[in-house]
Amino acid sequence: MTDRVETLIIGGGIIGHSISYYLNKSGVSTVVVEKSSSGSKATRAAAGMLGVHTENKQASVFHKLCETSRNLYKELSKELRNLTSIDIGLSEYGMIEISVDSEHERELAAKKEEFPDLDWITAEEMNHRYPYIKKTGGALFMKEDGHVEPANTCEAFKRAALFYGGRLIENNTVLGIEKVNEGYQVQLETGTLIAETVVVSSGADSGRWFEATGLENPIVPTKGECFSLFPARQYFKETLFFRNFYLVPKLDGRYVIGATSIPRDRSTTTTGGGLARLMNDVFAVLPGLADEPFQACWSGIRPGSVDDLPIIGEHPNLSGLYFATGHYRNGILLAPVTGQMIRDFIVENEVPYPEKEMLSPGRLATHERRVTL
Amino acid sequence: MTDRVETLIIGGGIIGHSISYYLNKSGVSTVVVEKSSSGSKATRAAAGMLGVHTENKQASVFHKLCETSRNLYKELSKELRNLTSIDIGLSEYGMIEISVDSEHERELAAKKEEFPDLDWITAEEMNHRYPYIKKTGGALFMKEDGHVEPANTCEAFKRAALFYGGRLIENNTVLGIEKVNEGYQVQLETGTLIAETVVVSSGADSGRWFEATGLENPIVPTKGECFSLFPARQYFKETLFFRNFYLVPKLDGRYVIGATSIPRDRSTTTTGGGLARLMNDVFAVLPGLADEPFQACWSGIRPGSVDDLPIIGEHPNLSGLYFATGHYRNGILLAPVTGQMIRDFIVENEVPYPEKEMLSPGRLATHERRVTL
Amino acid sequence: MTDRVETLIIGGGIIGHSISYYLNKSGVSTVVVEKSSSGSKATRAAAGMLGVHTENKQASVFHKLCETSRNLYKELSKELRNLTSIDIGLSEYGMIEISVDSEHERELAAKKEEFPDLDWITAEEMNHRYPYIKKTGGALFMKEDGHVEPANTCEAFKRAALFYGGRLIENNTVLGIEKVNEGYQVQLETGTLIAETVVVSSGADSGRWFEATGLENPIVPTKGECFSLFPARQYFKETLFFRNFYLVPKLDGRYVIGATSIPRDRSTTTTGGGLARLMNDVFAVLPGLADEPFQACWSGIRPGSVDDLPIIGEHPNLSGLYFATGHYRNGILLAPVTGQMIRDFIVENEVPYPEKEMLSPGRLATHERRVTL
Amino acid sequence: MTDRVETLIIGGGIIGHSISYYLNKSGVSTVVVEKSSSGSKATRAAAGMLGVHTENKQASVFHKLCETSRNLYKELSKELRNLTSIDIGLSEYGMIEISVDSEHERELAAKKEEFPDLDWITAEEMNHRYPYIKKTGGALFMKEDGHVEPANTCEAFKRAALFYGGRLIENNTVLGIEKVNEGYQVQLETGTLIAETVVVSSGADSGRWFEATGLENPIVPTKGECFSLFPARQYFKETLFFRNFYLVPKLDGRYVIGATSIPRDRSTTTTGGGLARLMNDVFAVLPGLADEPFQACWSGIRPGSVDDLPIIGEHPNLSGLYFATGHYRNGILLAPVTGQMIRDFIVENEVPYPEKEMLSPGRLATHERRVTL
Repeated sequence: MTDRVETLIIGGGIIGHSISYYLNKSGVSTVVVEKSSSGSKATRAAAGMLGVHTENKQASVFHKLCETSRNLYKELSKELRNLTSIDIGLSEYGMIEISVDSEHERELAAKKEEFPDLDWITAEEMNHRYPYIKKTGGALFMKEDGHVEPANTCEAFKRAALFYGGRLIENNTVLGIEKVNEGYQVQLETGTLIAETVVVSSGADSGRWFEATGLENPIVPTKGECFSLFPARQYFKETLFFRNFYLVPKLDGRYVIGATSIPRDRSTTTTGGGLARLMNDVFAVLPGLADEPFQACWSGIRPGSVDDLPIIGEHPNLSGLYFATGHYRNGILLAPVTGQMIRDFIVENEVPYPEKEMLSPGRLATHERRVTL
Repeated sequence: MTDRVETLIIGGGIIGHSISYYLNKSGVSTVVVEKSSSGSKATRAAAGMLGVHTENKQASVFHKLCETSRNLYKELSKELRNLTSIDIGLSEYGMIEISVDSEHERELAAKKEEFPDLDWITAEEMNHRYPYIKKTGGALFMKEDGHVEPANTCEAFKRAALFYGGRLIENNTVLGIEKVNEGYQVQLETGTLIAETVVVSSGADSGRWFEATGLENPIVPTKGECFSLFPARQYFKETLFFRNFYLVPKLDGRYVIGATSIPRDRSTTTTGGGLARLMNDVFAVLPGLADEPFQACWSGIRPGSVDDLPIIGEHPNLSGLYFATGHYRNGILLAPVTGQMIRDFIVENEVPYPEKEMLSPGRLATHERRVTL
Repeated sequence: MTDRVETLIIGGGIIGHSISYYLNKSGVSTVVVEKSSSGSKATRAAAGMLGVHTENKQASVFHKLCETSRNLYKELSKELRNLTSIDIGLSEYGMIEISVDSEHERELAAKKEEFPDLDWITAEEMNHRYPYIKKTGGALFMKEDGHVEPANTCEAFKRAALFYGGRLIENNTVLGIEKVNEGYQVQLETGTLIAETVVVSSGADSGRWFEATGLENPIVPTKGECFSLFPARQYFKETLFFRNFYLVPKLDGRYVIGATSIPRDRSTTTTGGGLARLMNDVFAVLPGLADEPFQACWSGIRPGSVDDLPIIGEHPNLSGLYFATGHYRNGILLAPVTGQMIRDFIVENEVPYPEKEMLSPGRLATHERRVTL
Repeated sequence: MTDRVETLIIGGGIIGHSISYYLNKSGVSTVVVEKSSSGSKATRAAAGMLGVHTENKQASVFHKLCETSRNLYKELSKELRNLTSIDIGLSEYGMIEISVDSEHERELAAKKEEFPDLDWITAEEMNHRYPYIKKTGGALFMKEDGHVEPANTCEAFKRAALFYGGRLIENNTVLGIEKVNEGYQVQLETGTLIAETVVVSSGADSGRWFEATGLENPIVPTKGECFSLFPARQYFKETLFFRNFYLVPKLDGRYVIGATSIPRDRSTTTTGGGLARLMNDVFAVLPGLADEPFQACWSGIRPGSVDDLPIIGEHPNLSGLYFATGHYRNGILLAPVTGQMIRDFIVENEVPYPEKEMLSPGRLATHERRVTL
């Protein structure tokens, strides 16, 4: 007799567990199937920035979605700590996007026009406040943006979902899914499940499920390499965002610095050359940090997408099959709102998101199935 | 020309850096001399419990001191985060001391008499609330007690002291100190400093400074071994305290479990046998935890003392030489109040602590110096 | 245009890379496809014992195969070091199987009858030579058995295969294979390859390929947990093999101790309870080791099989499709001979192995395909 | 009653344990006192090169000493493996010193004149054999030079010394030594020992013992930072030695690459800047390595000396007090011969080393004791 579930979620990163959390809280039971361990891939590699404005040049529905998601973290921080006693490490000291040449400064000034609520910091003020930054121009201060600790946040979503009745199967791969009368028959390495709805949230591994369901594969696995320093003293509290890299002062004293971006590289190593280039970029602008202790480096494969937007929504031809992937480097930022959107798609009749169309899998070209399901 | 400092602090663990923080904040400049890296020894090994009541059977001046210190952490948590952006990981879900036999239950009932503000939880209630604990008796709930993250707390004290002007010399050993006209001449591996006052806060390594200054050596280095699990779900939010061990649910999802206690063992390894005994004790009482993932184990050398009380105060014969050591397993708990006491000794004429005599180095027998300074 | 290869090998553990090494050396070019990193799963978790006799109670064709494979390591050790400068860590101090009760002693005595070349060590002699073993009975000394360092051995096979022209694709999953005219069309996450022959050597993940090709799935994923001590001194040079555990003195000074055996557990964590049980077993027999430093623990998923024999050979119905899996805890031991067998199957017309039938996939029951390829 | 020993050795790195090994083997019992763990400092950080010629520009008595010591490793490798079952990882694929400009090439050509046994490799031949090296000039091949694994070698010396009756006290500091009738009274943190002879072999921490005994302190603690890559394939088997860095292909597949050299820096961190500079130097000459995986970085404090020669021999005024330190980056290379020299000083009347005078502590200026013993 085959086990039956309401919603099966493929992929136990922060997106999958956020979806699981919101669904279970709304009374829809889930099974998350994760091929290795929860949060061990792109989630763990992320710096955790909530960069609403650094990821957007213009006010837009996508920018609005980012803002909504970031704002959800305030309440979530308390709720998840209460349910799981895990602290998601929300930092609210703001973010500064810093120009290093006049062209960049003009870009930032234009962004300030777009987002009047942001604060402009003049070059003089920047050089006064941050004397260890070499020749900074004007900068944008985004006081509401910050960061969370991705591993903790994913673990908190996971445990909160389990608290509300969710289930989790780790170290198991979904081999195939097939539309059947009652929903989807899902073939795992260890057996078969029947699910009413299926959500694909397996990040950079999601591509095969587009191909297998007759859609253009929008996923561009994109490697990112980071490193961390453990400075002997505090230089700044805000997240600093430069053109080629960023510095995130984590709540345990580390500075997480990222990131390279290498499309179509699926390898999980940090190359010597990638690390050297990133360090050279950082120390050219912040020479004083070169004297601080190196702590660690790592990499992750982000799920880029062909049009630089996530794919969130229902399959155009297969009802009950949802995608929630392609978040590139906004997976941590967008996890809460993605969880809510998928919950609303599954639970509600009305889905109140203006971004719905823009993010819909329906925008992808269809083709013959390239892989048998 | 010899460098001069107001206060030289021997030892850069949490005690040394707390003292440095409070002194610099009060305008007294310090140099902390640490033989390896800050917070890398007993501080880092600690579970971070703020066990005001688990460490005291009776209301006493020492109990009062513990309580004062614990209460300081609330304000400190905000202050240190503001100065350093480091989160000390303060958890305030309370602590439960749990009896597992009738004799132990009677002891706890007696403690409840001593501390009427604590809450009694009946055996029935305990078994209902914590069904995965095997055969628990009645328990004491101490809602104000909690824990901090020791490494973060020490690092925050360190950076806050540096912020206020303190200095730090790591990877250097104090070879000798000698009373001179202006205070103390301190011989490091790399040269000589003159300090008006000297504070010995080098934990389990402090013993030689008692011997070298004609005092009975009160320090009993006492090894403690811990391990951690990373449970797949949340069992409890409170710190659980049993007769032979405790479980501290840290804010990143780990359970830190401690600890063995081996007097006069200075080795820094975790033995297979020590770990096995601790695990056997834990899994006998909480059998379900045996299925949870092992994460890490480690050990530290706590500075026990001959009369089980810290030594905090001025040397009876050498004015300007202070001790702040012997905290055994209360170093994290007592770091704030120890810092304040030493600051008050050095800065104020009046020292308002009733515990002053009880903790004074003057209680130690004097003898001929066994080691030349 | 689809890329074409002679042999595609699914799985880059020690078995896959040994096959790749022998094939390339014989002029057959290969592509190894590994879902994560080479040698990172069961290979890395293994203790590396070459336990020809501990794994066999009776002389048999299987025993002969084990012996052949062990003997190959002597020459391989030099050859691989020469090709790659990697030392596979071959230790030839022999292995001792030790009885701890009279029933066990009788079993070992019977084994001595089977294998007259082995040496018997009396209980008296054992207690004299190994005074730190508690109450040992008689023992069997297998002077030719030893161990290698699995990670090094796999890496050496890998690099030697690359030296001979082999290719390696890591971080990629084989989604499906389909029989076509020229051989097999293999669907990866990143595209399609055409291979003349395909070898399945993906250890505990191999099961799906049996199911997908109409065979009974013989694979029983079986978790094994190990730990290591780093003793302060040398106790013994031989590998010690007891009924429930073994101790392997590695060439860097560690003692690797294993292993639990949990069928159908695919999780990759080491549970507290598993570790405690293993340590309790070891310290009951070797109490002195309880004082030695714990170093690490880990686990791996071994590919057990339903009849406790590996599956090595060609698919009964699909020519050009080979299996080399199900080695349970003999993967390191049997890697060389498995590589040679698959090479002989693919390269030679005559396959001179008497074990051929016994290990053949043809012994498995056939059924309808449960998963579409 | 004070414990008595024949020889007390201060410092349990590779030098101290080599001395202990040779002394115990010759019947002189020792106690090694190590402040933390054996081999955990400069020993563990070393790459392990046996660079007889890279460390010498001219044939000299010091060069001869290096050669003698290197040659000892062949026999030692077998002897230590036999006594301890630890493999010291001796690699004998030779070393190549490579010029990258014409001035450097002339220097190497001059060295070839000095050491006629070395082989010259022309620039053409180099570019042919090592096409991934950018624009190499001529090179010197030193076929006898190689490397060992320092941690294993130190551990093997340690266990072999224990096997012959030596003793080891870890986690303890020597506070003072005083000449008494029977030899030296040595004050540890835990008590007092009387030793007939004392050997100072505490590397970069040795300086205080020169100062304390009225000698000029010759020790220049010199930090060195290294990193390692784990290449996917084998590039070369020989150790490559360039002007600013070297690459050591270890027997487990790692390339250890070193090293920065920062006099009077005693910190144990690896700075981001130090790592970046080293990587930039390496990747400029070997650009292909930039694509290989970064594995780890670390640092150690080498005991440099004021005249760039080790100090090995008896104190000019205090008979029975020996020094064996100041080996800078030749500690691994010179450990065997240093052990033999100190053994000969202590055991034999005649000491047959022509280098005796050159290395003698007697060459150091004397002064008033700066630290009381």
